[in-house]
Amino acid sequence: MDYVYGPGRNHLFVPGPVNIPEQVTRAMNRNNEDYRSPAIPALTKVLLEDVKKIFKTTSGTPFLIPTTGTGAWESALTNTLSPGDRIVSFLIGQFSLLWIDQQQRLNFNVDVVESDWGQGANLDILASKIGQDKSHTIKAVCIVHNETATGVTNNLATVRKILDHYQHPALFLVDGVSSVCALDFRMDEWGIDVALTGSQKALSLPTGMGIVCASPKALEASKTAKSVRVFFDWNDYLKFYKLGTYWPYTPSIQLLYGLRAALDLIFEEGLDNVIARHGRLAKATRLAVEAWGLKNCTQKEEWFSDTVTAVIVPSYIDSSEIVRRAWKQYNLSLGLGLNKVAGKVFRIGHLGNVNELQLLGCLAGVEMVLKDVGYPVKLGSGVAAASAYLQNSTPLIPSRI
Amino acid sequence: MDYVYGPGRNHLFVPGPVNIPEQVTRAMNRNNEDYRSPAIPALTKVLLEDVKKIFKTTSGTPFLIPTTGTGAWESALTNTLSPGDRIVSFLIGQFSLLWIDQQQRLNFNVDVVESDWGQGANLDILASKIGQDKSHTIKAVCIVHNETATGVTNNLATVRKILDHYQHPALFLVDGVSSVCALDFRMDEWGIDVALTGSQKALSLPTGMGIVCASPKALEASKTAKSVRVFFDWNDYLKFYKLGTYWPYTPSIQLLYGLRAALDLIFEEGLDNVIARHGRLAKATRLAVEAWGLKNCTQKEEWFSDTVTAVIVPSYIDSSEIVRRAWKQYNLSLGLGLNKVAGKVFRIGHLGNVNELQLLGCLAGVEMVLKDVGYPVKLGSGVAAASAYLQNSTPLIPSRI
Amino acid sequence: MDYVYGPGRNHLFVPGPVNIPEQVTRAMNRNNEDYRSPAIPALTKVLLEDVKKIFKTTSGTPFLIPTTGTGAWESALTNTLSPGDRIVSFLIGQFSLLWIDQQQRLNFNVDVVESDWGQGANLDILASKIGQDKSHTIKAVCIVHNETATGVTNNLATVRKILDHYQHPALFLVDGVSSVCALDFRMDEWGIDVALTGSQKALSLPTGMGIVCASPKALEASKTAKSVRVFFDWNDYLKFYKLGTYWPYTPSIQLLYGLRAALDLIFEEGLDNVIARHGRLAKATRLAVEAWGLKNCTQKEEWFSDTVTAVIVPSYIDSSEIVRRAWKQYNLSLGLGLNKVAGKVFRIGHLGNVNELQLLGCLAGVEMVLKDVGYPVKLGSGVAAASAYLQNSTPLIPSRI
Amino acid sequence: MDYVYGPGRNHLFVPGPVNIPEQVTRAMNRNNEDYRSPAIPALTKVLLEDVKKIFKTTSGTPFLIPTTGTGAWESALTNTLSPGDRIVSFLIGQFSLLWIDQQQRLNFNVDVVESDWGQGANLDILASKIGQDKSHTIKAVCIVHNETATGVTNNLATVRKILDHYQHPALFLVDGVSSVCALDFRMDEWGIDVALTGSQKALSLPTGMGIVCASPKALEASKTAKSVRVFFDWNDYLKFYKLGTYWPYTPSIQLLYGLRAALDLIFEEGLDNVIARHGRLAKATRLAVEAWGLKNCTQKEEWFSDTVTAVIVPSYIDSSEIVRRAWKQYNLSLGLGLNKVAGKVFRIGHLGNVNELQLLGCLAGVEMVLKDVGYPVKLGSGVAAASAYLQNSTPLIPSRI
Repeated sequence: MDYVYGPGRNHLFVPGPVNIPEQVTRAMNRNNEDYRSPAIPALTKVLLEDVKKIFKTTSGTPFLIPTTGTGAWESALTNTLSPGDRIVSFLIGQFSLLWIDQQQRLNFNVDVVESDWGQGANLDILASKIGQDKSHTIKAVCIVHNETATGVTNNLATVRKILDHYQHPALFLVDGVSSVCALDFRMDEWGIDVALTGSQKALSLPTGMGIVCASPKALEASKTAKSVRVFFDWNDYLKFYKLGTYWPYTPSIQLLYGLRAALDLIFEEGLDNVIARHGRLAKATRLAVEAWGLKNCTQKEEWFSDTVTAVIVPSYIDSSEIVRRAWKQYNLSLGLGLNKVAGKVFRIGHLGNVNELQLLGCLAGVEMVLKDVGYPVKLGSGVAAASAYLQNSTPLIPSRI
Repeated sequence: MDYVYGPGRNHLFVPGPVNIPEQVTRAMNRNNEDYRSPAIPALTKVLLEDVKKIFKTTSGTPFLIPTTGTGAWESALTNTLSPGDRIVSFLIGQFSLLWIDQQQRLNFNVDVVESDWGQGANLDILASKIGQDKSHTIKAVCIVHNETATGVTNNLATVRKILDHYQHPALFLVDGVSSVCALDFRMDEWGIDVALTGSQKALSLPTGMGIVCASPKALEASKTAKSVRVFFDWNDYLKFYKLGTYWPYTPSIQLLYGLRAALDLIFEEGLDNVIARHGRLAKATRLAVEAWGLKNCTQKEEWFSDTVTAVIVPSYIDSSEIVRRAWKQYNLSLGLGLNKVAGKVFRIGHLGNVNELQLLGCLAGVEMVLKDVGYPVKLGSGVAAASAYLQNSTPLIPSRI
Repeated sequence: MDYVYGPGRNHLFVPGPVNIPEQVTRAMNRNNEDYRSPAIPALTKVLLEDVKKIFKTTSGTPFLIPTTGTGAWESALTNTLSPGDRIVSFLIGQFSLLWIDQQQRLNFNVDVVESDWGQGANLDILASKIGQDKSHTIKAVCIVHNETATGVTNNLATVRKILDHYQHPALFLVDGVSSVCALDFRMDEWGIDVALTGSQKALSLPTGMGIVCASPKALEASKTAKSVRVFFDWNDYLKFYKLGTYWPYTPSIQLLYGLRAALDLIFEEGLDNVIARHGRLAKATRLAVEAWGLKNCTQKEEWFSDTVTAVIVPSYIDSSEIVRRAWKQYNLSLGLGLNKVAGKVFRIGHLGNVNELQLLGCLAGVEMVLKDVGYPVKLGSGVAAASAYLQNSTPLIPSRI
Repeated sequence: MDYVYGPGRNHLFVPGPVNIPEQVTRAMNRNNEDYRSPAIPALTKVLLEDVKKIFKTTSGTPFLIPTTGTGAWESALTNTLSPGDRIVSFLIGQFSLLWIDQQQRLNFNVDVVESDWGQGANLDILASKIGQDKSHTIKAVCIVHNETATGVTNNLATVRKILDHYQHPALFLVDGVSSVCALDFRMDEWGIDVALTGSQKALSLPTGMGIVCASPKALEASKTAKSVRVFFDWNDYLKFYKLGTYWPYTPSIQLLYGLRAALDLIFEEGLDNVIARHGRLAKATRLAVEAWGLKNCTQKEEWFSDTVTAVIVPSYIDSSEIVRRAWKQYNLSLGLGLNKVAGKVFRIGHLGNVNELQLLGCLAGVEMVLKDVGYPVKLGSGVAAASAYLQNSTPLIPSRI
């Protein structure tokens, strides 16, 4: 049943699904249960409270949906908008492209703001569109916080500032798939109306749970939104929330206990420490890339992503060959370049439950692969650059002091 | 993290989610993996072939969707039908009711054929409607194979005969959630166009995978079906099937390996033996109910379900109290009566990876609970009736002969 | 890798190894760890404190030895006695026989007091021997608390009374393998000098940890005991206890965490409630045996074991055939008759983490097997007798009230 | 229950217990079973055949003993020797010291050949002793193949040559704890009489199984060996081997299935490839140590160990501080210096199921720790040296080509 066995650990550095900590695997190692017994609602009740903390919201209403990020997108859109509604959306990479594709297929009137892949969302254009929209035809601004294909993080605070500046009532919908629990994310402070993520990203769970959090304004909008929805309808959940039984259909018992364990780990480390760790590992990765003489796909520092780094390879190298080779020789899983940047970049995911030495092992592997495919890297150079930074910045593990 | 601990095993006899065999738990006890490496497509390819066997189809195209049964319903409907389409649907219990509710909210023109709860779908009315529909306004017949709320199994062969008799082109959509892998199910022979099930039922997996299987005719219909769909769109899957990478979005690695293990167990036992085992356990349950002097909610033998038995309690007893007490005192999980039959019936699920002695333990528990709540049952009577049948009909375990 | 698969749960009713609760399996589902880091000593320290509670001792010193019950026996004997020492030992079944065999091979001068298999230790003879031994040539009394082969429990309090009555200084060594954590066991109150058990019995762990608890008097004796021992030498442990690193050689990390989980469950249920549960299940089993018209191998009520019941079959039946058939047809694991009672008895183990309905499932299975092999049992009779008792005596699960 | 949590994987580089591959953890994730059913003997039979392969013996008889390496030592000695027997034993580090301590406590007449810690066994002295021993007073030569405390591997072929040269009949007893399954080990070719290892070393299992393999000559010796033994007596096993039930006392069901999985992985990789991988990782480690400007505790290349490298630190550094810091800051577990070399060396275990990038992560961690504690290491230097070698020598993973 185990295909393509290689000795030792698989070094999983795709930007999702990510490494599951043993504590979570353990918590999920269980039989099914009756989800209508008192046990599962008791567990769910606390989970719904606790999951709000990772969005930094107190006023939001969370939904734990048996789906993926794609489903979470659909949940966010169809519950708040009606067909034909004008929305502004930013195309900056493969995942924003896919969300826009979904928006269009759901029959919204999508005002696409495109940037080069490697750049962030063009918020100047957003400001201009919002400023001009005196009649409030724009119903929503949709933005991917962190574009996983290019390693670009958008500035959500600025989006809020623009909307506030013009006192524009558009809903603010955010894909936090590769950001929540890893990057600085402040749903309430930034006035986000719908934020969403998936279990297999920074939460470090298996795939299968889409987590969507709706502001009171979003809930209000859902009462009049005319998009057809059933499976993704928040209302079915809200009905069961009131009953205290919580589930309109069968949840994954295992993912609920897994989420409990994942949140426990995050809270034990401290959410802000988790975010700082992501910052530390990302910075170390960028220093390694620089030491190798390679370019980050992200064009400006302000957009650097702390969860994924897309590395541009010289034109004489096919980045897919790097990914293939890493897996075939070193049991190292890297991210492919997607769509426009296919063959041109490979990606290092540094998100979720991962630490310094895991990353350094990965970087050492990348160095060897680069050399294997003909790039004249100085072996050890990236690790040295990353180590120099990490050795100065890695705190003692609090529980071990 | 473990709420409401009681010593010993939980006796899980709700009609889903059901007991997961240790082999499946084991197979799922693993880290995430890159689903874009060659390993996961290789695994998926074989799974897609093998999963067709449990539907008894060779011509169908299966989809493994990260969702629940409710999502699988939506996938079946939205890929094959357009808003306003007339469909015939049978209301015979809570789950058929929920599917009809979904059909209506998806804006189909639902021709509801209602029966008393405890009766099967009224196929005479279907015959009459189909017979009269010379102009083929009926686009689909939607039927729940096994109504989990009342323990009623509908006759799918008859539905096919009616359609054939009138040479009616309506699509034949079947909810097989509590039937596939447990009841006699023949997708190709019965000309079913879309069949679906959920992982947490007779497959004995955790919740989280909706399995939908489409006939060539259904696939053809999907090309013109105008229902809005993105997450549930088969087309996104088909595109990736062609590429050989299989997944339009991240699957649950764990559920894939779990499905592999679950199918292995089913094939080792033999699908027909699995179905025979369900028949045996169901018959034993019904004999026990009779011995207790209680009534089966299912009104005629032809509709008896081999996966769930709904038992009517005397009017002076609240069936919910039976379910509560079973859990509180004997660590036994039974199914509640739902909606119209709330308080009136309790349900014994006997589906999935379960055997004779597990069932007899459950029946012994039900007897004690019945006595606890004031019903004058003769302790041991149900077990005796069930045992007498099982002792004569249980084969030796083939691998142990 | 799974031999001889049968659908559904294996019904494990041998008197060890017993069913492992899911919580324990989960806790053990982990990688190795450095046992010299601060984590394992911290864990061990608390375990050593907590494990004393299951022996009801505050003055004892526990040793967690990577071995089985046989090794625990050897540890008890070789640390406290010298070759040639006279010891009194009781032969009442296969396990006491094996211990005596060990005592003889370790060159002690064993004064064997034999009883019929099915009877308890003859304590009158003990009294007589102790009474006559004015010169204190008897260095130890060795007794198996619960003889697992015949289902006989000896009265330890009486042994202590005898020793006290004659103010005899003999060490009091007790095999508690199938008793500790299941039967009333009071190391301090009964003045037991060495008590021992194995992880795979009432603690409901995998095999591999022998737990030995020594009184101050036993520790004192170990300073002069001349039996050769290295692996089993307590002194090696005590040296590391002082250092606070605890382990003279590598422990099983998994069993340590498993023991933690097992103790947590026992303390949550309450040790006295655990013992009461064993009493309840045992009584129910005996009532079933009586209802079947069969005899308990245990000849008097005072010796009835609450952890295992050995059932005598009619002479025209081979009890091994019952055990074989139970496994082959019903996935039920019963205990064979051993040595003198081979073919004559089969055994039902009712110890460890097991509950009422599990037992009733087993009893229903035994009934069917009895009928299968030609014994004219009335199906349901045993279950009825057991249920009648259990229905009146089973308390609500405290956490669920 | 999880003490001292740190984010990400623990980097386990002590020389045992080592990392358990997920496949093995999975295989062990199971309930207990009746070890007297036909399943466990069937499993055991094949395990006993397969386990001989890792010793490279066809004529040996293996014993799977529920114990640790210390117990396996005792099994080897007590089954083949009698008190007072003269044996030659080599003291070259902490583990050979402990074995000698055991030999002395078991009352053998131990002729200790001591070397400086960091040197191998002095085989010249052996040759001299054997040469002089015309009357064959030497009953056994006991040698630790790989001294885990100092990273020294002894030359077993030479020992055999010496014995053969003088046609000396002494038994040849080998501790292969940190060598079997990792270093070149040829029981039959080298005429080893007893070879032993522990499950938690190169087999990459949890602790708890001592594996002892006896030559026909050793079995013959066991018939007359007068050392007292019961738990460790081979004869008890052999009796049950003949019966085909295999177990004189309860084995760990989980470790048996774990061993099955561990052997499957080793055979899939190929034992010789496993050994080559150990050679590769060890060489890389030594190159890193050299690049750091540090000394290997092993004084000559001929003794270099491919499973553990002991690194000497400058006298102004306490090596324990390195180990503590690695764990506290980087979740890296290194081996302490023991006894004579406490504070002077730290150890990197590179044995078991581990691969190149895991090792490079560890080496990167060691570099940072060295700097943290004040040693002027050039960060990246060791990784560069190791990578340069690994990049040239690491083969593609066969299953992925």
